[in-house]
Amino acid sequence: MSEEMTARSPHAVAALVAYDGLSFAGFAAQPGQKTVQGVLEDALVVVLRRPVLLAVAGRTDSGVHALGQVVSFHGQGETPDLAELRRSVNALVCEGVIVRAMQFACPQFSARFDAIAREYRYRVSNGDAPPLFTAGVSWRVRKPLDVEAMYEASRCLIGENDFRSFCLSASSLGKRTFRRLDTIEFAWEEHLGEPCLSIRIVGNAFLHSMVRVIMGTLVEVGTGRRKPEWVAEVLAAQGRVHAGPTAPAHGLTLWSVTYRPGVGLGDGFLG
Amino acid sequence: MSEEMTARSPHAVAALVAYDGLSFAGFAAQPGQKTVQGVLEDALVVVLRRPVLLAVAGRTDSGVHALGQVVSFHGQGETPDLAELRRSVNALVCEGVIVRAMQFACPQFSARFDAIAREYRYRVSNGDAPPLFTAGVSWRVRKPLDVEAMYEASRCLIGENDFRSFCLSASSLGKRTFRRLDTIEFAWEEHLGEPCLSIRIVGNAFLHSMVRVIMGTLVEVGTGRRKPEWVAEVLAAQGRVHAGPTAPAHGLTLWSVTYRPGVGLGDGFLG
Repeated sequence: MSEEMTARSPHAVAALVAYDGLSFAGFAAQPGQKTVQGVLEDALVVVLRRPVLLAVAGRTDSGVHALGQVVSFHGQGETPDLAELRRSVNALVCEGVIVRAMQFACPQFSARFDAIAREYRYRVSNGDAPPLFTAGVSWRVRKPLDVEAMYEASRCLIGENDFRSFCLSASSLGKRTFRRLDTIEFAWEEHLGEPCLSIRIVGNAFLHSMVRVIMGTLVEVGTGRRKPEWVAEVLAAQGRVHAGPTAPAHGLTLWSVTYRPGVGLGDGFLG
Repeated sequence: MSEEMTARSPHAVAALVAYDGLSFAGFAAQPGQKTVQGVLEDALVVVLRRPVLLAVAGRTDSGVHALGQVVSFHGQGETPDLAELRRSVNALVCEGVIVRAMQFACPQFSARFDAIAREYRYRVSNGDAPPLFTAGVSWRVRKPLDVEAMYEASRCLIGENDFRSFCLSASSLGKRTFRRLDTIEFAWEEHLGEPCLSIRIVGNAFLHSMVRVIMGTLVEVGTGRRKPEWVAEVLAAQGRVHAGPTAPAHGLTLWSVTYRPGVGLGDGFLG
């Protein structure tokens, strides 16, 4: 369904959101902190004149950017004009966050639970000179990276694995730490005239800081400090202490989210 | 000559500089203002322990960015280690400016007078949603642009012309206002996941705000407010009042500078 159509009540609204991670203390609402969720919910309350609780596809940490984050919320009764709602919310939110699109979904739709894949991109600036225009969206690694070694090292991570070694948060212990990684691709790109290594990672879901620990670990291989085979040992060891450092948050961007069919996102931006 | 080589005294040093125009009150030094020239000269004075006066290829206005600005300065006596000098200067300057490379040139070299071509890029963000990651480096134009009409309109500007109509500064009156435009190219690009129209403009030299007035004028055609033929009338009218508005500074980037052969830039970054 497109923005122009009206859904019957009860309804659910999905929104595509971009934000600059450096402007927020992460996605999730926290008392006394400027968070993406807090800013969006505050704006929605003003426009809709009722409390709104957002579901989110990727609970990004402080400093992590998003180009294609997806949030959703439910409503009863009168359905909003989504083009108008989007304009109003964008006029109310602070700088650093933008609602790119909105659409209706099935009444039970959840941006979190109906997502079947998340795509992240991690950028590494690896040129001779430090980046300027892309400094806020890439991790500067001075030592030249052996991308072939990084690619080789990354192969063992593809598939369904216990990613306990690549999970930052102690609170995940005792929780299920199996996830499915579908893709890790490496490409040299140029953005705003500056070169960077762009790593595309797609999986069904991710543990806390999982992409950043994977990146920190692969860069250990890229700089030659570790052999490619080491990453398989890290995976098998099943403990955070075995992996490399956590790569900086600001190199990471939540790129896009894919939803299962049949949740009413047919011909919209998420269909 | 490369950074590693040493030049005989007297010598000239050329430096390739990038900066975020929004961090400075333009390139040229002004009392009490933070300018690129001021910041670079202050750092060079500290390292070289003598006053330094920079020559510059493009005297960019406040808000205009540079990826490939070129500056030069002269010296007598002991020649500096340029790799070391670059590191020291980059450690001293504030955020928002970076010396990307340094090399020796012929003793009489001037970054300003030996330049034979300057290339600028102007970015227009023209998508449905406002840009986020490229907001600081592109002009947001909401109305969809007819790029074919802009291209057609731009053809009359190519070649040696009196660009008086496209010059902002009254102080240029009485000065020679002929310039040679070699190239105006249009391309849709994607940077950091966001689309933009990138306009590449190359010429021998540019009048004050010339690229920005050209861009403001071409966008009048792109949005349909004016016909393509109008731009030729603007050019012929030879007065600033006839052209379109001056496009915002932050959409503009000084991209690169070309030097005439025989100024000692042989195999360096500018050769």
